[in-house]
Amino acid sequence: MEHASFPPLSRVAICGGTHGNEMTGVYIVREMQKKKENAARSFSIIPVLTNPRAVDVCRRYADMDLNRCFTDALLSSPVTNSMPYELRRAQELNTQLGPKGGKEAVDLLVDLHNTTANMGLCLIFYSLDWLTLHILKYIQNKISSVPVRAIQLDIPLSDAYSLEAVGKHGFAIEVGPQPHGVLRADIFNVAKKAVDLTLEFIQEFNAGRRFEGGEVEAYTFVKSIDYPRDSSGEITAAIHPELQDKDFQLLRSGDPLFLSFSGETVKHDGEDLYPFFINECAYYEKKVAFQLALKTTFLLPSVSVEKN
Amino acid sequence: MEHASFPPLSRVAICGGTHGNEMTGVYIVREMQKKKENAARSFSIIPVLTNPRAVDVCRRYADMDLNRCFTDALLSSPVTNSMPYELRRAQELNTQLGPKGGKEAVDLLVDLHNTTANMGLCLIFYSLDWLTLHILKYIQNKISSVPVRAIQLDIPLSDAYSLEAVGKHGFAIEVGPQPHGVLRADIFNVAKKAVDLTLEFIQEFNAGRRFEGGEVEAYTFVKSIDYPRDSSGEITAAIHPELQDKDFQLLRSGDPLFLSFSGETVKHDGEDLYPFFINECAYYEKKVAFQLALKTTFLLPSVSVEKN
Repeated sequence: MEHASFPPLSRVAICGGTHGNEMTGVYIVREMQKKKENAARSFSIIPVLTNPRAVDVCRRYADMDLNRCFTDALLSSPVTNSMPYELRRAQELNTQLGPKGGKEAVDLLVDLHNTTANMGLCLIFYSLDWLTLHILKYIQNKISSVPVRAIQLDIPLSDAYSLEAVGKHGFAIEVGPQPHGVLRADIFNVAKKAVDLTLEFIQEFNAGRRFEGGEVEAYTFVKSIDYPRDSSGEITAAIHPELQDKDFQLLRSGDPLFLSFSGETVKHDGEDLYPFFINECAYYEKKVAFQLALKTTFLLPSVSVEKN
Repeated sequence: MEHASFPPLSRVAICGGTHGNEMTGVYIVREMQKKKENAARSFSIIPVLTNPRAVDVCRRYADMDLNRCFTDALLSSPVTNSMPYELRRAQELNTQLGPKGGKEAVDLLVDLHNTTANMGLCLIFYSLDWLTLHILKYIQNKISSVPVRAIQLDIPLSDAYSLEAVGKHGFAIEVGPQPHGVLRADIFNVAKKAVDLTLEFIQEFNAGRRFEGGEVEAYTFVKSIDYPRDSSGEITAAIHPELQDKDFQLLRSGDPLFLSFSGETVKHDGEDLYPFFINECAYYEKKVAFQLALKTTFLLPSVSVEKN
């Protein structure tokens, strides 16, 4: 089997509060900022509270969704006095942690998110990256309290719109279900464990450990499905009780999708796919009731650090 | 056993959106407003979306919490151009559905709420009112999918701060757990069933049915408990995983309350009481981690409509 090697990871950013009401990341980052880093490590950790204005008011964002601001086009848009707060903040973060696609970027960027959907722990990737998929496997092997899955967005780097695209390697950690604005200890503990395991992996990787290859499953985004709506754009149905909380359970043609307020069931009519982000609070305004994915199995090469 | 009689209920207000991100009430009221009322009823139904500005932006409120604006003092405060939106709205609602404590007030006011706490279906009352406690019993007898409970606040009417105090009789229906900003079909269906049963009760009551007395349990509010905080006011702990979602399960001295971010458990040190509103999203800003209640059993008289 193939082998891949990568340079050591020397700068790692742990980010939270990109959405100001997703509380797990806010409190993990604040705790990391408070703690003196005593551990002897082969790398530096940069904890960043990325959207302090949104955190202060406990909302997703102040002017626009920060986690849609990291495309090449938006990062290079001219600075004006009237630009939205988050667009300015994205450019600041790109200076601090990037530049995206550049040599000076942090080696790994992890951004912490929550969802109201019953998704367990997910690592979200833009593209297949053997190194970060090995981190996924490492976490999967050590967390059994919730399912640990990979979501792949398959978007070219130039169009990649979220913060983790700024690092040389990067992923979002998405944990749910948790209402936005609420901090649950169980969800906090799972996310904190995933962050600690990521740091543990890096320490072992930098020290020269060889991580054996193998198979890894990922859910690849196919499309988003909107709620049924009336002519004025108001939703006319909720997620069906038989679909609610069933993230990553295969949806077959004929399975219920929505229950209208007048009691009718809307059924799935199409190919078999895996639903996720079912009834995510923040996606109502994006006109997304849930998303659908294909499940793919990838063959991972073994990885180790590059020998100088 | 005692018997109590009441005048017929001729005007009934069903209110939702008092908190603009509590979606069950928003959609129940919108559906009621759309439907032509064909049923032959002995009473009129007034569906009211009470805080449209907060509903439009899907937030709890625009300027201040509408459901704290219905004290006698605030309802009689002078109208100014700079008054908060919700204070003006409270006075409008008091004109439309009240006046609070007055002869022209609606006979029954039901206000629909959601909570992120695992509270099932609760009816919240200011004071003991045999008629509305009979509605509780009626609902308890016909809903078995979730627990149905009564919470009593025991506040004098003049200080009663929430919308249901405007009706001659009134209660809030609180249903959870549901993240604010999310509409779950299971929660919608339970709340809708409770509204339908309330209307069914009124129809039978007005028609002269005698409702037999008996025992009824209520949880009487005792006090609120804040999160542990550091010197700057930041919370330093989350609700303990063993307390989370355990609303209405007796809390004894020594039971865990909080889990600090550094891993220490804070335990209950005091009398045995029943916790509720555990980890309610909107109560972080009110400095309430959960509330505690005593459980009391009341002896209900039978009730029927007054004969003219």
